[in-house]
Amino acid sequence: MIKNLLIIGCGLIGSSILRAVHRNNIAKKIFIYEKSKKNISKIKKLKISSILVKDIKKNISLMDVIIFCTPMSEYKGIISRIDNFVNPNCILTDVGSTKEKFHSNTLNKFKIKNLWVSGHPIAGSEVSGPEFGKANLFKNKWCILIKDKNTDKKKLAFLYRFWKRLGSSISVMDPKKHDTVFSMTSHLPHLIAYNLVNTATDFEKQKKYKLINFSAGGLRDFSRIAASNEIMWRDIFFSNKKNISNSIDLFVRNLKILKKIINFEKNKLIIDKLTKAKKVRKKIIKLKQDINKPDFGRD
Amino acid sequence: MIKNLLIIGCGLIGSSILRAVHRNNIAKKIFIYEKSKKNISKIKKLKISSILVKDIKKNISLMDVIIFCTPMSEYKGIISRIDNFVNPNCILTDVGSTKEKFHSNTLNKFKIKNLWVSGHPIAGSEVSGPEFGKANLFKNKWCILIKDKNTDKKKLAFLYRFWKRLGSSISVMDPKKHDTVFSMTSHLPHLIAYNLVNTATDFEKQKKYKLINFSAGGLRDFSRIAASNEIMWRDIFFSNKKNISNSIDLFVRNLKILKKIINFEKNKLIIDKLTKAKKVRKKIIKLKQDINKPDFGRD
Repeated sequence: MIKNLLIIGCGLIGSSILRAVHRNNIAKKIFIYEKSKKNISKIKKLKISSILVKDIKKNISLMDVIIFCTPMSEYKGIISRIDNFVNPNCILTDVGSTKEKFHSNTLNKFKIKNLWVSGHPIAGSEVSGPEFGKANLFKNKWCILIKDKNTDKKKLAFLYRFWKRLGSSISVMDPKKHDTVFSMTSHLPHLIAYNLVNTATDFEKQKKYKLINFSAGGLRDFSRIAASNEIMWRDIFFSNKKNISNSIDLFVRNLKILKKIINFEKNKLIIDKLTKAKKVRKKIIKLKQDINKPDFGRD
Repeated sequence: MIKNLLIIGCGLIGSSILRAVHRNNIAKKIFIYEKSKKNISKIKKLKISSILVKDIKKNISLMDVIIFCTPMSEYKGIISRIDNFVNPNCILTDVGSTKEKFHSNTLNKFKIKNLWVSGHPIAGSEVSGPEFGKANLFKNKWCILIKDKNTDKKKLAFLYRFWKRLGSSISVMDPKKHDTVFSMTSHLPHLIAYNLVNTATDFEKQKKYKLINFSAGGLRDFSRIAASNEIMWRDIFFSNKKNISNSIDLFVRNLKILKKIINFEKNKLIIDKLTKAKKVRKKIIKLKQDINKPDFGRD
């Protein structure tokens, strides 16, 4: 059992960790550092026994585990304030969505670099804030743990067990692989969704048609993803820009081929492309990455 | 009450009309013309009183209302077989997803052109086949009815009442406006989804990473739309290619701007784009075009 656990940033993910740790009795004492007054009052309403920390330096040396759940752009500032005071036996981790730039540009500059093992639970949502957290948010979801040449194996093993107890399946990757994989399965889809929704509203203005009214034909799905937190997604796009740029280029190249196939009405080619895409859905459902109900069961 | 109603093509939409007409007691007799033996045996299992038609010409003159629910590429062949035999008081309609090309290139060549009023219920899904139909599929969904200079107002009014009884909200448009609106709210999103899924699988092969495993981060949403029926979507893409090409160009132009904003880490510009897109979700939920639950309530 963890004696003293500190959660830094208590929004959707932080508060879900809070709930899950509390429910599974994983820590004796849970400390929370949260900047937003609005979030603090929401956390108090949860009535989960926890200690709100006002000065992050105070008592930091007592912490056994520290989990960063703020937007990634805040990591550096917080680390620089606590770097001299963290207990040398402490395990530091995070839930950030990109890894390479943080590991090579930020972490290396601080003393705590050998205490840190990065994590990334694949359990986001378009909503943010502690009121949307759930104790079972991580259940049957992947949690990626990052291993590179500096990684302490004992700390990695500790976090493996930690996320297992929260219900996750664990996959271990190096930072480069992580950022490449998620540039395609998560970052590009979000960017595409944002861009599609903005293109539709541009088009609406241009044509003076009320087209958002008719978004049930497909656009509405993209609008869910495009409603995700803008600070979090700015940080992801900026910190993984090389991989995302490559993904965009590949996507645009394929889109131009598809456009030609359509304009020349190439029957065999279009049927090939569409059936090939269709098969992926079956695979995703088989891999339990989505529910097996038409329309996500929403109607 | 309709005396004799003929549904041509009884998949997801056709069988939902069958169910809804039966439940609401809208027609005395329902005739079904369906080519697929597999679908016929599924329709029989529904145990809804209906008459399966083997020869489409036989008894066609007795029909009061005929609804085309086949893939659009089959309309022309079927019309050419029945054109000489349809009762001059009959109302013909369809549920096809594009309108302009059909109205200007196909319908004009046939006698029944003045008996036809096009329709388009916005109620699709990634699944197809009569087993997935639902009597309430059209409830609280838009149904677009098409009006151009040839449209018989009485027939339009009849179909207005028909779809109202099936629970739809009606919007009347000309073919051009219809195809422009849906190129953006439906056709482009589907094309983008197909392209994203195919880009991800190309990338998977190229990198030899098992990235579909991690599709819960966003890709899975696109895979649902990309699992839609390939014949139906080929027909849509080919028949609305001009509008779709324009939509692709607008989309790619915006995507390239977004790529630059990311590569140059333009903070204000990215936050503007992301918050602008986020607002659209709220509008879509307010317009009742999607449910107001995080993650479509699927988890």
